[in-house]
Amino acid sequence: MDSAISCTNGISNGNGVCGKGYSLNGYRKSCWYEEEIEEDLRWCFALNSILHTGHSQFQDIALLDTKPFGKALVIDGKLQSAETDEFIYHECLVHPALLHHPNPKTIFIMGGGEGSTARELLRHKAVDKVVMCDIDEEVVQFCKSYLLVNREAFCDPRLKLVISDARAELENKEENYDVIVGDLADPIEGGPCYKLYTKSFYELVVKPKLNHDGIFVTQAGPAGIFSHAEVFSCIYNTLKQVFKYVVPYSAHIPSYADTWGWVMASDKPFVLTADELDIRIKQRIKGENRYLDGKTFSSASTLSKAVRKSLDNETHIYTEGSARFIYGHGCADNKQSHV
Amino acid sequence: MDSAISCTNGISNGNGVCGKGYSLNGYRKSCWYEEEIEEDLRWCFALNSILHTGHSQFQDIALLDTKPFGKALVIDGKLQSAETDEFIYHECLVHPALLHHPNPKTIFIMGGGEGSTARELLRHKAVDKVVMCDIDEEVVQFCKSYLLVNREAFCDPRLKLVISDARAELENKEENYDVIVGDLADPIEGGPCYKLYTKSFYELVVKPKLNHDGIFVTQAGPAGIFSHAEVFSCIYNTLKQVFKYVVPYSAHIPSYADTWGWVMASDKPFVLTADELDIRIKQRIKGENRYLDGKTFSSASTLSKAVRKSLDNETHIYTEGSARFIYGHGCADNKQSHV
Amino acid sequence: MDSAISCTNGISNGNGVCGKGYSLNGYRKSCWYEEEIEEDLRWCFALNSILHTGHSQFQDIALLDTKPFGKALVIDGKLQSAETDEFIYHECLVHPALLHHPNPKTIFIMGGGEGSTARELLRHKAVDKVVMCDIDEEVVQFCKSYLLVNREAFCDPRLKLVISDARAELENKEENYDVIVGDLADPIEGGPCYKLYTKSFYELVVKPKLNHDGIFVTQAGPAGIFSHAEVFSCIYNTLKQVFKYVVPYSAHIPSYADTWGWVMASDKPFVLTADELDIRIKQRIKGENRYLDGKTFSSASTLSKAVRKSLDNETHIYTEGSARFIYGHGCADNKQSHV
Amino acid sequence: MDSAISCTNGISNGNGVCGKGYSLNGYRKSCWYEEEIEEDLRWCFALNSILHTGHSQFQDIALLDTKPFGKALVIDGKLQSAETDEFIYHECLVHPALLHHPNPKTIFIMGGGEGSTARELLRHKAVDKVVMCDIDEEVVQFCKSYLLVNREAFCDPRLKLVISDARAELENKEENYDVIVGDLADPIEGGPCYKLYTKSFYELVVKPKLNHDGIFVTQAGPAGIFSHAEVFSCIYNTLKQVFKYVVPYSAHIPSYADTWGWVMASDKPFVLTADELDIRIKQRIKGENRYLDGKTFSSASTLSKAVRKSLDNETHIYTEGSARFIYGHGCADNKQSHV
Repeated sequence: MDSAISCTNGISNGNGVCGKGYSLNGYRKSCWYEEEIEEDLRWCFALNSILHTGHSQFQDIALLDTKPFGKALVIDGKLQSAETDEFIYHECLVHPALLHHPNPKTIFIMGGGEGSTARELLRHKAVDKVVMCDIDEEVVQFCKSYLLVNREAFCDPRLKLVISDARAELENKEENYDVIVGDLADPIEGGPCYKLYTKSFYELVVKPKLNHDGIFVTQAGPAGIFSHAEVFSCIYNTLKQVFKYVVPYSAHIPSYADTWGWVMASDKPFVLTADELDIRIKQRIKGENRYLDGKTFSSASTLSKAVRKSLDNETHIYTEGSARFIYGHGCADNKQSHV
Repeated sequence: MDSAISCTNGISNGNGVCGKGYSLNGYRKSCWYEEEIEEDLRWCFALNSILHTGHSQFQDIALLDTKPFGKALVIDGKLQSAETDEFIYHECLVHPALLHHPNPKTIFIMGGGEGSTARELLRHKAVDKVVMCDIDEEVVQFCKSYLLVNREAFCDPRLKLVISDARAELENKEENYDVIVGDLADPIEGGPCYKLYTKSFYELVVKPKLNHDGIFVTQAGPAGIFSHAEVFSCIYNTLKQVFKYVVPYSAHIPSYADTWGWVMASDKPFVLTADELDIRIKQRIKGENRYLDGKTFSSASTLSKAVRKSLDNETHIYTEGSARFIYGHGCADNKQSHV
Repeated sequence: MDSAISCTNGISNGNGVCGKGYSLNGYRKSCWYEEEIEEDLRWCFALNSILHTGHSQFQDIALLDTKPFGKALVIDGKLQSAETDEFIYHECLVHPALLHHPNPKTIFIMGGGEGSTARELLRHKAVDKVVMCDIDEEVVQFCKSYLLVNREAFCDPRLKLVISDARAELENKEENYDVIVGDLADPIEGGPCYKLYTKSFYELVVKPKLNHDGIFVTQAGPAGIFSHAEVFSCIYNTLKQVFKYVVPYSAHIPSYADTWGWVMASDKPFVLTADELDIRIKQRIKGENRYLDGKTFSSASTLSKAVRKSLDNETHIYTEGSARFIYGHGCADNKQSHV
Repeated sequence: MDSAISCTNGISNGNGVCGKGYSLNGYRKSCWYEEEIEEDLRWCFALNSILHTGHSQFQDIALLDTKPFGKALVIDGKLQSAETDEFIYHECLVHPALLHHPNPKTIFIMGGGEGSTARELLRHKAVDKVVMCDIDEEVVQFCKSYLLVNREAFCDPRLKLVISDARAELENKEENYDVIVGDLADPIEGGPCYKLYTKSFYELVVKPKLNHDGIFVTQAGPAGIFSHAEVFSCIYNTLKQVFKYVVPYSAHIPSYADTWGWVMASDKPFVLTADELDIRIKQRIKGENRYLDGKTFSSASTLSKAVRKSLDNETHIYTEGSARFIYGHGCADNKQSHV
């Protein structure tokens, strides 16, 4: 039950569902959510309230009501998604891949239990089946209950929810897909998601499950002027070993305090112009995109000099045997490792 | 309605009423309550949750569930009371005055809307009437609803709750009292409580409303090695102008990050030994004191050298015209100004 | 004198000039620099040391040695420049304007006392005169003494340093320039820099002092998905009232925790392709750019959908009479207002 | 060389030795020293500067200039001593033991490299030899160089500085002492100081090295209403196994954010009244005590009810085999473990 509801004597509990946005403190902000982006770098949001907390066998989950970024989904102390700007992340993850596909009908999401990725996918009229495969049922239930913006998606008949390890699910089922979307935590040595970023995984599991002309896209970690070297360049280089055409792109997400990256890959070239993308957006997607149009994608896929060169010079490939260590993650299965 | 109650799918909202003390974050503490004790000094508690918030015409109120100090009542961003150690404050405020009185039957509390002061008073068997006079109905209602430890006191037939300005209430009613207790915010220039610390107030309002042998006691702000100079010494010196016998005493309250002070005053001398106090405690008070016994009071009323001398040398008297400025308060009517 | 120099008994003072980068604390980071980006958003850097502090009639200045971003210049509690990524800001401010100019020989910098803007300008072989006009002599001296990376620029014979109000300097001198660069604090109501962003200033002072084909470029505040509405869109729209061709562009600067913006303006169109820019970079600029090449500028000047639309729809014009209030600035003359 | 000295162009480096107390930031305090008193409790001081840092084979050392507490000595991220209130700690550690001794001529300090304990000891006219035995030469040198208030003590001919493990030094030398002072870090499992708090250490090393009527006194960790249970009660109970008369006492030290404890022990009873202590203070100690007089000691040695009972009921004895774990210490040899 939502803790923000009951009101007695003009006093509201939680976050003023009575419609009065009472701040905790008329003066200085007293309650803060603090995230250690790096050991020596902190990002702190003033808090209105801690709306809900939960706990699965894998992770601690919380939905915070923060002042600067609205409702924020936090898993194991790391921000996953903030209400005010998650649309940037999810539009960038989903639309470029689907727009470049001639007719994307069946989609498989690795992870994405939050529901926002499915939400963006289901806006595509051609899509008739989305399989959301997340390992953590609690996270899915939590988000299904509390992220109102994804309610519709969770109830959409085209959505099939599977609680399982994505790798096992892909391997064990016959089904193929037009697009496979990776919406998992960053690859970390020893982390549960690492194995879903390796060359052999892409080669032996993902590629075979893509239909002809299929496209694979994955979130690819921080992509800032220095932070891109943590996983972005490695994911890019690993995908280059497996697919003929690989397109990295990035966008600044304020609540992440960094530019974030994604990588699209296919054996068919990505050849749409900004105008062609805009036409397809108009034709194929229900509602308006807030972030992504043709020009935006053009800008996003034109990386700055240093990042471009770094990606070109990256030699590291994720294999079963190698890994890169990223700050702050032991074995959490959370999307944003904020490296 | 307590936000900590509802549990769905093994996920608890709020603070784990399901009996599972789930921390928000398995690793580092992410949510913090922060108080600026001084402009250059901060005291921060890791937060489990923000249980309830409220808002009166005067102040913002919140009940936080903090890790180090349990449930904490915060008014206008200043900690009033923490579950784990408020007993120190309230036992010290109440028992010395009542124990030194021959037969304390009627008590008037200026402020104390939290209910804890009344709770300690009502433990005295001789007491048959406690008037709690607080100006802020919302604070009283909030505490009545959420501070379970004071439930019994709020429901006690001997308690009479008055929502009014304490000065006006004392002036306008005929009634006299055996003990008058000041449980208000510290005196601050321009603050609403200032006028309840002046020489004329003590002389013209408090003293006349005390019965023969009556005792006045008030909370008196920080009493640390340096902080005592903010209001403690002034309250002491002001009372010395009005009453023949004035006894200052102090105790360290962990959640306040300081030693706190109180001052007792009467026209009759305070002559009990530690043993005599212990006998009276046994005879007169229901239940066990956790903090205060005879020796504790003896220690508390023996101030350290520098503080003793400072009080003796204090010349400032609170009058209608003078005031001392204390950090962080404009016009909030909160007990602890944490100066 | 640099406080980081003296070493006695194997102990280094300040920041380990003895070559040993001793952290203050082997365990958790204890010393932090904290910036309130907004009232409810904080950005904190672990500190190695506070290298130098200074104070002019206008502002407090400090050079901090921070762990995540190296040496950081802080003015009035706001980060101006961080060693690790100031090149992004300064390359973006300087090179697009000069590269688009047929033959940029004379440049006027409004502000820029830090010296980094001059540094980038002086890399252009065609440039034979740079006038740096900053109002705060202390800031200039401080940076001249402590920002080693700008030593060469400060000593360059082509640089002429003027301590004055930039508006008065431009108005009172006869001289005209090929490029005028605005490297000032954001326009804030009541702030000293506001008057250097108005339509009348651009019209009556800047434009007349530009040579034929001259270009004006200014830093233009935060340019994030929401933050761009603070000053970026207004600066853009104001310039559009005065110049025929106005090009806004932006880039993410990690230490600023935001995307930053600049606006270039001229009465001559900006028509270079990415390749043409690369050729000019090679021909005209000594040394390598770390951030900006043709593609980078192309990406930077292609704003995302929402920002593009917002700029197109902006109607506010900075005039002597109007202003927009921006968080956190009274009258500080600092470049980055971090709004 | 002190980094606070050099001034150029009216700009002072470090902490304004030019006499101008320039704050780093005219507005909000930007630089903070943060100490995690417990995992969920933080105590933060605004910083003027980081004056000196050092590093021995054992620990990281720093002298910070903090706003609320002046110069603060920090070892391994834990506050040892703050300029404004270290007199409370050092007067309490030293004077009760020496005052109760008939004629204290020779003193052995275990630890105390900071020099403040020696400073207080050397104020006693009867004292003709003080052996300061600290294991960390760097700490001693650092404090000798930078803690001006201890300069005189460090240069006193009666002081003999030994760099060694205190236990080994006592065991291996023939010498006996009138008073032995323990000024070490709290006993922590696995910590280097633990072995200097055990029953066998007291029995086999300390007691034999005390002269007839000798007194042992040691700092004894936090002594707050709850925190006393960490080490204070155990140190008390362990000493009770070895000495006939054991007196625990405590005082609030603002910069420690807690009440602190010490324990005095001897085979001769401690029988002085407050007045007798005052006479001895006047006769024996050069200069004025700021904190401790007879009444102050009377108050300090009268513990509050809960602490008194807790000490009486404590059964734990520190032996070679047992230990209590205290937050935040692995193997640092610092006095205040802030548990």
